[in-house]
Amino acid sequence: MSVEIKDMMQDIGKRARSASRAMARASSEQKNQALLHIANLVRQKAGEIQKVNQVDVERAKTNGQDPAFIDRLAMTAKTIETMALGLEQIVSLEDPIGKTTSLKKQASGIELGQMRVPLGVIGIIYESRPNVTIDAAALCLKSGNAVILRGGSEAIDSNTLLAQIIQDGLAAAGLPKDAVQVVTTTDRSAVGEMITMTEYIDVIVPRGGKSLIARLMAEARVPMIKHLDGICHTYIDADADLAMAIKVCDNAKTQRYAPCNAMETLLVNQAIASKVLPQLCKIYQDKGVELRVDALTRSTLEASGFKNLVDATEEDWQTEYLAPILSIKTVADIDEAMNHIERYGSKHTDAIITNNKAQADRFLREVDSASVMVNASTRFADGFEYGLGAEIGISNDKLHARGPVGLEGLTSLKYIVMGHGEIRN
Amino acid sequence: MSVEIKDMMQDIGKRARSASRAMARASSEQKNQALLHIANLVRQKAGEIQKVNQVDVERAKTNGQDPAFIDRLAMTAKTIETMALGLEQIVSLEDPIGKTTSLKKQASGIELGQMRVPLGVIGIIYESRPNVTIDAAALCLKSGNAVILRGGSEAIDSNTLLAQIIQDGLAAAGLPKDAVQVVTTTDRSAVGEMITMTEYIDVIVPRGGKSLIARLMAEARVPMIKHLDGICHTYIDADADLAMAIKVCDNAKTQRYAPCNAMETLLVNQAIASKVLPQLCKIYQDKGVELRVDALTRSTLEASGFKNLVDATEEDWQTEYLAPILSIKTVADIDEAMNHIERYGSKHTDAIITNNKAQADRFLREVDSASVMVNASTRFADGFEYGLGAEIGISNDKLHARGPVGLEGLTSLKYIVMGHGEIRN
Repeated sequence: MSVEIKDMMQDIGKRARSASRAMARASSEQKNQALLHIANLVRQKAGEIQKVNQVDVERAKTNGQDPAFIDRLAMTAKTIETMALGLEQIVSLEDPIGKTTSLKKQASGIELGQMRVPLGVIGIIYESRPNVTIDAAALCLKSGNAVILRGGSEAIDSNTLLAQIIQDGLAAAGLPKDAVQVVTTTDRSAVGEMITMTEYIDVIVPRGGKSLIARLMAEARVPMIKHLDGICHTYIDADADLAMAIKVCDNAKTQRYAPCNAMETLLVNQAIASKVLPQLCKIYQDKGVELRVDALTRSTLEASGFKNLVDATEEDWQTEYLAPILSIKTVADIDEAMNHIERYGSKHTDAIITNNKAQADRFLREVDSASVMVNASTRFADGFEYGLGAEIGISNDKLHARGPVGLEGLTSLKYIVMGHGEIRN
Repeated sequence: MSVEIKDMMQDIGKRARSASRAMARASSEQKNQALLHIANLVRQKAGEIQKVNQVDVERAKTNGQDPAFIDRLAMTAKTIETMALGLEQIVSLEDPIGKTTSLKKQASGIELGQMRVPLGVIGIIYESRPNVTIDAAALCLKSGNAVILRGGSEAIDSNTLLAQIIQDGLAAAGLPKDAVQVVTTTDRSAVGEMITMTEYIDVIVPRGGKSLIARLMAEARVPMIKHLDGICHTYIDADADLAMAIKVCDNAKTQRYAPCNAMETLLVNQAIASKVLPQLCKIYQDKGVELRVDALTRSTLEASGFKNLVDATEEDWQTEYLAPILSIKTVADIDEAMNHIERYGSKHTDAIITNNKAQADRFLREVDSASVMVNASTRFADGFEYGLGAEIGISNDKLHARGPVGLEGLTSLKYIVMGHGEIRN
């Protein structure tokens, strides 16, 4: 890495660390004022944002980026208004910082509690969507953290303008501009420095595709709150309500194909397979979902006249399609279902459809995933649906934050001790 | 690394992962039965343990290890009984696994809660004390985890016997022996494999000196719950109760010198310095504590006839002495005190002595340490004193577990959703 990039990143880190102290002390009112200033500026400058964003978009087109990429990069009047609304929504969320658990007297006489505090400095590494600049900065700001944002090089002009708007909003509320800094070099080595400067960054939140995350995981020294993939399962138990199973499994797969919480594999108990599969698979095929099935499922479906079934391979069970493709396996019992999930799942979100409480309880307790559900669509695994108000991401990790991560995931608990002159014996 | 070591560690990892599923399902009663079996076996085999431990001790002596090292390695009848009592104490702790928060209905109708679950597989890397084998295994077992233990090569005979005892106890309770495995090779590359096999180990807890931790931090890919150092401060505010300040600061430094929560730097408000320092420093000097002071403290103390004061250097402020040495600085106000703590502290434990509530509140909120105390000795930062029952270590990290880490720190929360056929719109 060039000395210049390293020095630049170290300087950004130092300034973030220093700003993080002021952010930790900031009152809820001050933080909310900053968010409202930013929302107003975003609306006032909507025209300018679109103009600058157009520069990014044109450059991306010239560079031959595909339409999906351009779509993620482009900011419309609607995207911009959504950002402003998002900021106002974060204002309305309760500030987690400074909350203290009730103090509990210990044997020695000291009173012990825990206080919620910011993590310090968060690093966000993301790809082409420039709205992440505003969304992620707002969550970090509200939770009393400083943040260093490193967006995709293709969105550099949009991100630089958005950073300016955020810093103006911070300054208007009397908060340090350095609390939100955007890395404006497109040099990739800046990311390498970010993920290793443990003295200045407390946690990295990567937002992007699996390949980005995998690359960061291989080199990061700073802890990460990361989301890898969502190979989500629904298991239809022998004691499932048929109509519910069909409704929920349809929704889990087809309501949207791209989200990480969409179902990728359906597991069906053999006792109910011939009742549920024909009806459900008709819906899937009518919606154009390709079905990749094991031998048992194939024979059940073929007995009902189904065609166009693909044999599922070992690779299918471990694939996050994010597309109108579903793998289906007929299983002997809940143990086979849970073994399959243990072996092929990604510990993201898995559901059981059953009216049998004992089976539901076993599934809830034994399936080791961030979200485990009974009689609900896996698509509910989401910060908004969970009432977190907003999410910085969904974590596949078990340490610290698991599942959808909201404001609280950007905080830590410290112990506080109220004494009266106690000493240890 | 040799292929053999890598294969061996991968095999241990696979077996631990498999055992972790059975441990996650184990009832509290089963886990407690195992702990009681182990306690009985430890008592029954006390003679054998001492005999085997003697082999380790003799070898260490032959290798020229110093007396402090031998002292940590040697197991006496008392050490062994303490291990058995420790096991029984962990039986009496509440089992955190399976506890569920009350379910909360969301806008969609789904009911959302969180359930406490084990982390999975814990790796413990420790140095010469063989009692860690029992203590750490017991905490991991009670919290429903599988564990891989890698102790110091000097304690290999003791650890191998203790592992056998633990596995016999597990088997007697119908739990898989692989839930507790001891790495019996003394090849150092086994550690390198442990700290990078992310597919089989969920978290590494290193227990040992700063140099061990630093070495692991440089190479680990598995997340760590780690303790680096304890540069703990006490700040005597202008509004402190004199007698309390003297009693607490004496205890924080001199009750024991070696623990990480002993005070290393005393900060004194200049308004109270001439009242508190002479009395307090007389106690320190009478107990043989070397005082390393800044210029203001020196002039205060010399005005009272003190001799044998050492000038504190920049290095003193960042040193964890773990010895009868104390650095002292006189500060203008609480801001200078907190700036000093921010700059030189290790975010472990810091205390203020004051009767001024506003100052106490600022200190509690603004000092970014795992434990922040008012009017109490820093020596209280300890799992037992905090009512955790036992501790696997003290964490300097902000993510996941901060401060003394008990059973709960070895667990994670997963989301559970109880639905009634809800789908997303």
